[in-house]
Order: sequence, then C-alpha cells, then structure tokens
Amino acid sequence: MNAQLTIVRDVNALRAQIAAWRSAGERSALVPTMGALHEGHLSLVRLARTQAKRVVASLFVNPKQFAAHEDLGTYPRDEQGDAEKLAGAGCDLLYAPEAAAMYPPGFATSVSVAEVSAPLEGEIRPHFFGGVATVVAKLFLQAPCDVAVFGEKDYQQLLVVKRMARDLDFPIGIIGGETVREADGLAMSSRNAYLSEAERATAGKLNVILREAVARLETARGGIPAVEKKAIAQLTEAGFAPVDYVSVRDADDLGAFPGDIVVRPARILAAAWIGKTRLIDNMPVKAFAA
Amino acid sequence: MNAQLTIVRDVNALRAQIAAWRSAGERSALVPTMGALHEGHLSLVRLARTQAKRVVASLFVNPKQFAAHEDLGTYPRDEQGDAEKLAGAGCDLLYAPEAAAMYPPGFATSVSVAEVSAPLEGEIRPHFFGGVATVVAKLFLQAPCDVAVFGEKDYQQLLVVKRMARDLDFPIGIIGGETVREADGLAMSSRNAYLSEAERATAGKLNVILREAVARLETARGGIPAVEKKAIAQLTEAGFAPVDYVSVRDADDLGAFPGDIVVRPARILAAAWIGKTRLIDNMPVKAFAA
Repeated sequence: MNAQLTIVRDVNALRAQIAAWRSAGERSALVPTMGALHEGHLSLVRLARTQAKRVVASLFVNPKQFAAHEDLGTYPRDEQGDAEKLAGAGCDLLYAPEAAAMYPPGFATSVSVAEVSAPLEGEIRPHFFGGVATVVAKLFLQAPCDVAVFGEKDYQQLLVVKRMARDLDFPIGIIGGETVREADGLAMSSRNAYLSEAERATAGKLNVILREAVARLETARGGIPAVEKKAIAQLTEAGFAPVDYVSVRDADDLGAFPGDIVVRPARILAAAWIGKTRLIDNMPVKAFAA
Repeated sequence: MNAQLTIVRDVNALRAQIAAWRSAGERSALVPTMGALHEGHLSLVRLARTQAKRVVASLFVNPKQFAAHEDLGTYPRDEQGDAEKLAGAGCDLLYAPEAAAMYPPGFATSVSVAEVSAPLEGEIRPHFFGGVATVVAKLFLQAPCDVAVFGEKDYQQLLVVKRMARDLDFPIGIIGGETVREADGLAMSSRNAYLSEAERATAGKLNVILREAVARLETARGGIPAVEKKAIAQLTEAGFAPVDYVSVRDADDLGAFPGDIVVRPARILAAAWIGKTRLIDNMPVKAFAA
C-alpha cells in the first residue's frame, strides 16, 4: 500500500515510470476511470494488483463520450479524494491529464468499432462508443501497460474495448472486473450520486428485477421475449421511466438470440431512467440445459 | 547489406525481433509498403537506414483501402522479387502478413482522420484514408519501431498518418521521403506498370505541367485559381481525361488559400487519368516573397 500517490499529468513522465518498472521486470496494469471513484473502481484496482505488480489509474472525464445534452458539465469531480482512495487500494500512480493535452487543437482522429457497438447503448447514445474507443486507444498508447482492467458494469463498453484491442493488435490484455453492488443490489456508479433519497430506494429494484429475469431464463420458465417484456413492465411499475431497453444477448458479441431459449452464455442488459438519472445494469445468464 | 532477407508472417516473431534489437540498443524503422517495389520504395528504405540501425519493411496489399471498383485484384504482386530488392537496399526484415491474419473474422474496428482526409483524394476515394489509417495503426502496433517512413508521393496520406500518430500518441516518429522520379519527371509508382507505351509517353507530362505551375506560383506570375485552371487545361490538352483535380493547398493541413497568392509553404497536388490508369503527383511550393 502507498500512503502517498504520485499524480502525473505528462505523458512522457508516465511512460518513463512504466518503462522503469518494465526494466525492473515489473508488470503494470492500467485502470482507466473518469474519477468520482467508488468501491467498484477500487475493486478494479485490487483486481489489477492480482495481474501486475504496478497499477496505474487514469482519471479523465472524456468529453468525446458525452453528447451535448448529457452531463459532462455536472459529472462529479474530486481528484484529491480519488487520489486518496486509490492510494488506499494500492494504486501506484494516478495519470490525470488535462483535456487540452488529450485533445489539442486540430485533433481529428477517431476510432470506432462496428457490430458490438451498434445495439443497445449504441442506438441510444450513438456518439458514446466512438468516444470511448478513441480515448481508450489513446490511453493504451500513452500508458503501455501489460494489462488493462474495465468494469463489467459497462458490459458493452468492455466488449467494445476487447474487440478494438484484438482488431488493432494492442499488446495489452483486457480483463473485466465484476460489478460491485450496494446491499440492495444497485450497481455502484458515480451517477448514483445524482439520485434523491426516494429515487435511491427505487433504484435498487433494477437489479432485483434483472435477477428474477435471469432465474426465469436459466430455468426456461419464460421465453426470451416474454422475460424481456415482463422485466420492462416491472421496471415501469416500479417507477422507472422511460425504460430504454431490457435485452438478452449473446455474451460475446451481443448478438440477439434467434429463438426463445438461451442456448449459449448470455447477458441480460438494461438501461432505465429514474427522474433525470439514467441507470444501467447487466447480469450473466447461463445457457439453459434441459 | 543483407544478401538474404528474413521474411516473417507472424506478429509475435516480428515483435520478438524488434524487442531484441531494442534490448541491444538498436533503433528500428518501419517502411510500410504494398509491394511491387520500385526505386521510390528503396529510397525510403535507405532513408530509414539513416534514422535507425534496423529496417523493417512491411508488404501488405490492404483490401480496406480499395473500393469495390478499384484494382485490388490486379494490383501487381511479386513477393520474391520485392524481398530481393529490399535485401539489396539494406532492409533487415520483411513483414508480410496474410490478409486473414490482419483482418480475422469479426474485425470491426476502424480508424479515421477528419479534416486532412476530407479534400482531394478524400472526395474522390472516400473509403481510402479510413483504410489507410486503420491498417497503419495496426502496423504501428504490430511493429513497435522508433520511426516510420512514408513517401511524399502520397502526400495527403503522409499528412493523414502524421495527424493520426500525433492525435493518438503513437510513440513513433513519422518521416516523409522525397518522391523519386523517372528521367522525364514521372513519379515512380507501382501503378505505372499499367501504362501502355503511348500512355507512358504522356504520363511524364503530369510532372512537367506541375513544375511549370510551381514556377508561376513562386514568382506570382499567376494567381492560384488561374494557375490551377491552366494546369488542368494543359493536362487535358496532353491527353489526361478526366483530370480529377489540380489544387494548391497549405503544406501542413491541406487548407485552401483564401487569396490568390501563396503566403505560406504550400503544395500543389494533382490526380489525373490516362486511359484506365489513375496517376497522382505533388510538388512543394515556396511562399511568394515580393
């Protein structure tokens, strides 16, 4: 554990540190974040430490993954608090670049991933995965670590990053970390801070409803469309409005299942609003074996 | 000079060799090519040797930068001949991956560069620079050399690659190599092999006409639009049809000049057809100083 965390803003200093670790035979892991850290992020740092002796967290609220109407301006920021939490979780270095350094004048390059980016979040937030893929590509090049850890909370994002890394031959392993939840099942998220007390009480029902859907799918007590429809009705009944989607998809490529039954490992994914806050969650679904 | 050139198809073997050179303190340079090598390519290999002790050439006819109606199927291929030429020019290693390894099933990632990709070739070959940026990003990740060398013959491509490398923080220096020409000024190109004897005689006039345009611009004997118009008329008169463009642009970002006079370092760029062959060429233009 490091009591004091080094904060680096300059890419050359970042690379020098990673290169020095490599020279000393020490593997390094990158944990990209947008800050406003919670136990979910810290679990990724701890997972990273099982993969590498050295852990770099990045903190960058990436404007390219917010649309004009979204919450870039109000997204929670607390670099000092984040640094203290990271130090406590055993992180070695925080890379916190300035936006002007990440996107200098004339920045014109974008990275996009077709197919796995297209459905679900891709339909509702068409700018989102392009912004994610672009900044993650840049972070991977700035911080040439051995592995990078991303949360399964953003499951589609994890698949997009994996596909990009494979397609372009990034020499970095991509590892997913399990979602960390509150006692009532609510997936930890920096955006949970937006919820009022009443909204917070409702929010926990998202995961309860998804878990029930998973149980029905795994025992084939309902076909896929019926389970999705019921979950949407339950969310609406609980006070979520609108429900952007509840969808059961192939766990590897987010392809839809042609039939009623989950015949391969799947994922159920949902996005729904409470008031002005948009929540997402997802759960693994085992293939049904009769 | 190496009499015998090692040919590598596997990315792991490629990286192992580059890493071994690096461990020995030897810099390496990458020269990406589509094969069908001529003196222009070999001049890039020689330039690369002035920048790094070790030179890797890649040979990959990249399907992503050809449109369906273009000449992917007939593009000249001669790997053995290319390997011999490279060995003679002092290249250390030829990386010649299979298309199936570069673009495996499910390949879904693309890299694109706005602005500098948009005019000229970008208007006429809208797929082209996306295909180039994607494969070059992948090659840079497969072959982590210190520098990469690209020919100024494809001037807009050179600017696209420079912008991509800067924007995404590729840890590689991009160097442009001067165009090598035949005795009559024709820029060397693998596609010159398509020309009949009569077409070859006409082809040399492209550079003669551009050089005349440069002389008029540098002495302000004609405004930019008049010089472009005259060059197009001369090309048409010489038998080029159609002339896709003759355009005078800012040398750094290919922006158009607002006035008549070249007030910053510029480039004159042209693309024109002879029969079924499309030729491109470009020349530097010095700013006019009264």
